[in-house]
Amino acid sequence: MAATPVKFEQLGLIGCGLMGGSFALALKKAGLVKRVVGYSKSPSTTERARQMGVIDIEAPSALLAVSGADLVLLAVPVSATEATFKAIRHLLSKDTLVMDVGSTKREVIDAARRVLKDQVGVFVPAHPIAGKEQAGVEHADAELYHGRQVILTPIERTDAPQVDKATQLWTALGCHVQVMSPESHDAAYAAVSHLPHMIAFALMNAITGQENGKQFLSLAGPGFRDFTRIAASDPSIWRDILTSNREELIAQSRQFQRALHAFEAAVASSDPDALEALIDKASQARSNWRMNAHKPQS
Amino acid sequence: MAATPVKFEQLGLIGCGLMGGSFALALKKAGLVKRVVGYSKSPSTTERARQMGVIDIEAPSALLAVSGADLVLLAVPVSATEATFKAIRHLLSKDTLVMDVGSTKREVIDAARRVLKDQVGVFVPAHPIAGKEQAGVEHADAELYHGRQVILTPIERTDAPQVDKATQLWTALGCHVQVMSPESHDAAYAAVSHLPHMIAFALMNAITGQENGKQFLSLAGPGFRDFTRIAASDPSIWRDILTSNREELIAQSRQFQRALHAFEAAVASSDPDALEALIDKASQARSNWRMNAHKPQS
Repeated sequence: MAATPVKFEQLGLIGCGLMGGSFALALKKAGLVKRVVGYSKSPSTTERARQMGVIDIEAPSALLAVSGADLVLLAVPVSATEATFKAIRHLLSKDTLVMDVGSTKREVIDAARRVLKDQVGVFVPAHPIAGKEQAGVEHADAELYHGRQVILTPIERTDAPQVDKATQLWTALGCHVQVMSPESHDAAYAAVSHLPHMIAFALMNAITGQENGKQFLSLAGPGFRDFTRIAASDPSIWRDILTSNREELIAQSRQFQRALHAFEAAVASSDPDALEALIDKASQARSNWRMNAHKPQS
Repeated sequence: MAATPVKFEQLGLIGCGLMGGSFALALKKAGLVKRVVGYSKSPSTTERARQMGVIDIEAPSALLAVSGADLVLLAVPVSATEATFKAIRHLLSKDTLVMDVGSTKREVIDAARRVLKDQVGVFVPAHPIAGKEQAGVEHADAELYHGRQVILTPIERTDAPQVDKATQLWTALGCHVQVMSPESHDAAYAAVSHLPHMIAFALMNAITGQENGKQFLSLAGPGFRDFTRIAASDPSIWRDILTSNREELIAQSRQFQRALHAFEAAVASSDPDALEALIDKASQARSNWRMNAHKPQS
């Protein structure tokens, strides 16, 4: 989009795990940042990130990571957002671009409003649709975000130039940027991400809770492998995501259970035509789906 | 396992789709069969299979495909099993090895008992744990079964030498053979295959049934892609599978819904510790799972 992508002097990275570490590596690879100052709650993570070249300088606190930064990324669990904003707010200038990478947006934005108050305009809530089951800086990857969608959910008080800067930055990293409201974001990802995770977790627990669960698992094949891949996701991160989007998630879970009951009814009544029609609808929808299709919005 | 694998003069292949076609190609590649005579309900499929070299000779009926065969594979939807046995029983000799590839076993075995009567001993029920979403002979692949598990579910009346022959055959194709009861098989695959399919179908329908369903789908990422891959499966084949294993499937669906409700309760009550414990259990189980681990049975 931008002919000359924005460049930054210093990234203040708070949270040097998979998401934050991959962002730092991608920025460096694209030549968009001169130095990265990083902070993680666990000093050993921060040290590891520096040893790996993910960050250049270890900061002893979140506040010091932000000192002198013209770009700040919060890559912490959603529940740590408010405390992080509190820790850094005194060193945020109005020219600093602040973003997060959280999978839910309303709680993050509420925290930003409460803590940043008049400064909330610097914050551009962001959600890159990328990840791995393996958390930790060891799995950080400069290509994690490449070709992925990034959703920005600015509010009315978000500074428009900050949204432009954020758009240019993610675009320069090879991402497809979409802007939408936090409410639309949270509803959509309840359906296509948070609920599938909760279902995958529940299926694993349903199986392992049975007497023959171990034997069942030993017999599972490639369909099961792909279906349950997301069940291996990080517990503390997903605890936060599911909790912070609880209303939309429960609403989507109810919709899903209604659809599941329709299948059960067709199976139980041995109505092959009704069952085939239900499967056909699902199969066609999935066959026609393409990731990142980016159809023009109507 | 066998130093000299069994070889066959003629495979009579009934159903020249993905599963049957891949079996024929694998046998040919391994040099285990001299010729393949194939029959499909749709003459254009049979013709296509011959043009592709999947079969050598087109048979105008299932009975004629079996004529002269010392190996017969039924690769038809589960609901077509009984009619197929009826069509071929007059030309089965007691030295012919007859197998199927159905994803459920009790209904198939009941059909075999009813139709084959005294000849039922020739039939070795088989379920190779392999497949693709794309059905049809166009997607047949000599490597489809390689490295996969194959479950054999003989009954008391199954001839022991036939089970040995079947074991040698699949082993020669690079498969890991396990023998278990039809009941154990159907319970296990209800949990690790049939229910995941039903859930994936239901999730697709739950999303597409919503006003914003199209937008939701356009935002979905790699987690959704893998989770829903099996939702693109063939409707008529999966109608049969779900219906023919309905009791175990519904029992597993209930277990799953209990586990899902435990998640909903933890999410709704904002009990982060309880929620994290549930996710942790699932995440550990999935992280420790390996496909084809083949641990010794205790």
